[in-house]
Amino acid sequence: MATSVRGPVAPTTGSLAVQLPLSVDDVEITGGPLGRWQRTSRTASIPLGLAQVEQAGSVPNLRLAAGEGQGDFRGYRFQDSDLYKQLEAVAWEQIRKPDGDYGAFLAGSAELLARAQRPDGYLNSHYQLVKPDLVYAELETSHEMYCAGHLLQAAVAAARAGCAPRLLEVARRFADHLVSVFLAGGNDGIDGHPEVETALVELYRLTGERSYLALAAKLIDNRGRGLIRDTGLGPLYAQDHLPVRQADTAVGHAVRQLYLEAGIVDVYLETGDRTLLDCSVRRWEDMVATKTYLTGGLGSRHDGEAFGERYELPPDRAYAESCAAIASMHWNWRLLLATGDGRYADLFERTLYNAFAASTSADGLRFFYVNPLQRRADHATDRYDGRRREWFECACCPPNIMRTVASLGHYVAGQTDDGLHVHQYVPGTIRSAQVDLTLATDYPWDGRVGITVDRAPGKWQLHLRIPAWSRSTTVTVDGEPVPADPDERGYVVLDSPRRLVELVLDMSPRLVRPHPRVDAIRGCAAVERGPLVYCFEQADQPTDLDELVLAAGTELRIRRTDDLPGVGSTVLIEADAYSVHQPYSGLPYGSLPHPDRTPAIATAVPYYQWDNRDGGAMRVWLPVS
Amino acid sequence: MATSVRGPVAPTTGSLAVQLPLSVDDVEITGGPLGRWQRTSRTASIPLGLAQVEQAGSVPNLRLAAGEGQGDFRGYRFQDSDLYKQLEAVAWEQIRKPDGDYGAFLAGSAELLARAQRPDGYLNSHYQLVKPDLVYAELETSHEMYCAGHLLQAAVAAARAGCAPRLLEVARRFADHLVSVFLAGGNDGIDGHPEVETALVELYRLTGERSYLALAAKLIDNRGRGLIRDTGLGPLYAQDHLPVRQADTAVGHAVRQLYLEAGIVDVYLETGDRTLLDCSVRRWEDMVATKTYLTGGLGSRHDGEAFGERYELPPDRAYAESCAAIASMHWNWRLLLATGDGRYADLFERTLYNAFAASTSADGLRFFYVNPLQRRADHATDRYDGRRREWFECACCPPNIMRTVASLGHYVAGQTDDGLHVHQYVPGTIRSAQVDLTLATDYPWDGRVGITVDRAPGKWQLHLRIPAWSRSTTVTVDGEPVPADPDERGYVVLDSPRRLVELVLDMSPRLVRPHPRVDAIRGCAAVERGPLVYCFEQADQPTDLDELVLAAGTELRIRRTDDLPGVGSTVLIEADAYSVHQPYSGLPYGSLPHPDRTPAIATAVPYYQWDNRDGGAMRVWLPVS
Repeated sequence: MATSVRGPVAPTTGSLAVQLPLSVDDVEITGGPLGRWQRTSRTASIPLGLAQVEQAGSVPNLRLAAGEGQGDFRGYRFQDSDLYKQLEAVAWEQIRKPDGDYGAFLAGSAELLARAQRPDGYLNSHYQLVKPDLVYAELETSHEMYCAGHLLQAAVAAARAGCAPRLLEVARRFADHLVSVFLAGGNDGIDGHPEVETALVELYRLTGERSYLALAAKLIDNRGRGLIRDTGLGPLYAQDHLPVRQADTAVGHAVRQLYLEAGIVDVYLETGDRTLLDCSVRRWEDMVATKTYLTGGLGSRHDGEAFGERYELPPDRAYAESCAAIASMHWNWRLLLATGDGRYADLFERTLYNAFAASTSADGLRFFYVNPLQRRADHATDRYDGRRREWFECACCPPNIMRTVASLGHYVAGQTDDGLHVHQYVPGTIRSAQVDLTLATDYPWDGRVGITVDRAPGKWQLHLRIPAWSRSTTVTVDGEPVPADPDERGYVVLDSPRRLVELVLDMSPRLVRPHPRVDAIRGCAAVERGPLVYCFEQADQPTDLDELVLAAGTELRIRRTDDLPGVGSTVLIEADAYSVHQPYSGLPYGSLPHPDRTPAIATAVPYYQWDNRDGGAMRVWLPVS
Repeated sequence: MATSVRGPVAPTTGSLAVQLPLSVDDVEITGGPLGRWQRTSRTASIPLGLAQVEQAGSVPNLRLAAGEGQGDFRGYRFQDSDLYKQLEAVAWEQIRKPDGDYGAFLAGSAELLARAQRPDGYLNSHYQLVKPDLVYAELETSHEMYCAGHLLQAAVAAARAGCAPRLLEVARRFADHLVSVFLAGGNDGIDGHPEVETALVELYRLTGERSYLALAAKLIDNRGRGLIRDTGLGPLYAQDHLPVRQADTAVGHAVRQLYLEAGIVDVYLETGDRTLLDCSVRRWEDMVATKTYLTGGLGSRHDGEAFGERYELPPDRAYAESCAAIASMHWNWRLLLATGDGRYADLFERTLYNAFAASTSADGLRFFYVNPLQRRADHATDRYDGRRREWFECACCPPNIMRTVASLGHYVAGQTDDGLHVHQYVPGTIRSAQVDLTLATDYPWDGRVGITVDRAPGKWQLHLRIPAWSRSTTVTVDGEPVPADPDERGYVVLDSPRRLVELVLDMSPRLVRPHPRVDAIRGCAAVERGPLVYCFEQADQPTDLDELVLAAGTELRIRRTDDLPGVGSTVLIEADAYSVHQPYSGLPYGSLPHPDRTPAIATAVPYYQWDNRDGGAMRVWLPVS
């Protein structure tokens, strides 16, 4: 049975979810970096996105498909999906805070899509306009189901927002067309780019139509059986090398692998096929241990936008696409719902505050597609300047970011019959079926979280995630200390607290060393504090960043500021370091002249706030002397 | 005035070359790795190449262009160039050791090309067959001048071999057509891929026709002025970002940059425009210090086959294309002719024995396109298996390798009016205008080189290069020790030696550390001996290579063997090491459990001999404990 959850993921009441998420508006985030981001996303990013779906061709293409207007198809074959993600973002915003313009945009877009849709339910402006004879004939590259997936997700969001009912009709007609061809019709094709799987499951959750779930399951089962034509990038690129239950490690195009994983866990949740959960967890464990950046970034290769080999994690050439961070959050969230295990909330948090948060400038007007952990002083010899940009020719990331920011409230907590699990700490309020809380905190700048119980049943449990990074944690209930040892899932469990709970997480800055197999950062250290990964930007250093070396065993000193130019409020961290200059001597190997070495102070800024001042050098990992 | 030098580079008597090269057959290499390679290239590689120019479409395409046969154009737009390089290889072989089949192949190909050539001299099977309306209209990607360049070089080689005079006629007609359009005709277009520049200079050297030299100079002067349409890869890709006299560092597609540099030095040699030499030397110094692999490999990025940022030299994702090694040898050779400075011969040797020699399997039947310095155990999750292959869809490398191997004799020594400069040490004979030598040596396995003076004038000088890696060198003349200090160019100069000179270079194995700015190999060391870079292959290790760590200060022990499977004769080097195993603990950062550490012996094999046994892991750089 469908639930009343108005958010991206709403497992049915019969699902195997061990907890249920909240609606996007059940959690109000009133401050902190996430609250600020939700504001700038609404006031700056979304208006930019709405202008771009017009300007970059997504809406004009659909007008042409509807037989309206003049001109040629513009952009990529997946250009429709930019509009769909933008629609989804606006729908979540509409739940957060209704706006008449948003409602009109949703309704108007739904009407346009209805006019553009073929009588049989198929809808894709590129194939309708440019390649009508090749519908479903080149699924390895077509992105037709990928686009359909984003349409379905937008329609589910709009339906949950109570907006634009026409959009759901369009989506269902397309979904029914997919079912008629690929389930009932016996076509065994699968899209080169997973994404429709989670969308079909969600549409099933909303509508109860089981064929959508069955199609999602079939698409997942068919993957890895050589049904995707090789485009020259090899079968790993689109995860077609092995059936999902056999594959041991994340490979190929990272966003594809990660969307696929989210779909796999979604199908497990609704079908109970445990082999799906098991294989996904196995790959998660391998990926976390061998293919994940400190920031949570995933997919180390520019070449093929792909996962590399195990421990292939170069900081400078890290691809770590913003969309991969989002897809990882999708996957981790579903694993958390499936298991209640805090390690998924830990990685969600790491990704949220670092790989994902860095994607957007402080003003909400520029975006990273690629999120490296190092930028050298001479990076501008590259074919672009390595800075955030207002938009992209392939603009998958910005609207993906906006739909995620709009729905952040959904990911803060989970409820069960007997209590509430708080996964992420934000200042604001949480309303659930039985429990309402108010959270007062300056997290992540400060580790104290005051939780006021505004409403609760007589007997209940409050589960508070203790992040793995918190080395000493204290909890008090109504002023009385209580044991703060987390359970095996990483949560402190409090029995029926009545008024005030205070959680204090350990915000001591940490000097972090890499596993010896991570070749590219051997001999280096990074700085973290709370959930934040730090980085060293040239702007804050007294000398050439590329010559800075941390002093072994340096203490880390905190410096709070409210007016870092271009950034605003932040906490800086200072460390003892040396500036080491090696004179020119030809080939950079062999016996080198003795370097000049002078003491220096190295200053770090949260990674998510980087590139808000200039285009200078940046490093997350600094060598240690 | 043209000289009688029968080799790839023959500066005119009026040029600014400080020494002149020898003919390909003036040096006979009778043994050692280079002698063996010349044999396998002739007996195995060249027959394979001759079959492939037919099979992969190069010859059939030209037949179609001549109006003969049936079918469609096959392969890349630069498919003609594979045949041209193969013709050049055969021409040098024909000088080394004439063969009737080779002569027939050259003559037959020349006739075919003559029939395919347009009446106006233009010749390119792709554009004639597929895009006749776009001749010279898309120079940024067309490779028309690139192909022309390879034709010119093949024709020069055939002419110097005294074969297939028709080939030179075809080449001149095409060159004249280029001159009429791009010099006399005022078309300011330049090819996206440099290569024709050196070829035009060489054709000038052969024929004395100054318009060829003038066109080469114009093409070089026009580069970096925005005359190449951006294909989306940016102006750096094709070195069109800055005029050559302003650019400070090697950028973009590595082979393009390096062929361009060879052309720049060639134009300097023949025109005396010193600004060209100066800018090229400036980029050479920067490249050597910041963008060169230990193996001499160049171009660190798969993405765009490009030079990276300064110090961006990842061993695992090293692109280091075989063609880039060849192009670097072209450039270094011309710089050596222009200056006599041994540092260019040093880099030539490093590249020759490592980045270049690794390109080909011991049996001459498989080739690397990409030459990394590390291959992990799980590299086979990549889209190909990371091993040498028999051929490539884009087959630029194999015939390029064959033409270079066939002409190796050309690069061993240089002559001046008063003596001979020996740049590379090989067993065999050197004949020059005034001096004949016999070299007896087991180089590079052994550092002793016995040089017998077979013929010499009364007064002359013998210049022997002392490689920068030789930390102690001795020289005796007729058994008497003489000072072995090199001059400022890196050569020991001996006045009129009469009979026997013995040079002993220091063949102690060396543990080499990287410059601190080379981020990707911090904390590692590599092993070298003589000109050879070594690597550790899994096949020789007692434990998982990816867990091997060298003991700091280890001694290096030599072990000679004549029967390493798949390899044959070699010198192995053993070092003390540890096997360090880090248990699984989730994210590979932060506080990790204490690793298990057990002593082990690490065994290294010359890098050029790797991948001749299995597809296992390999590392040039090992961590040091």
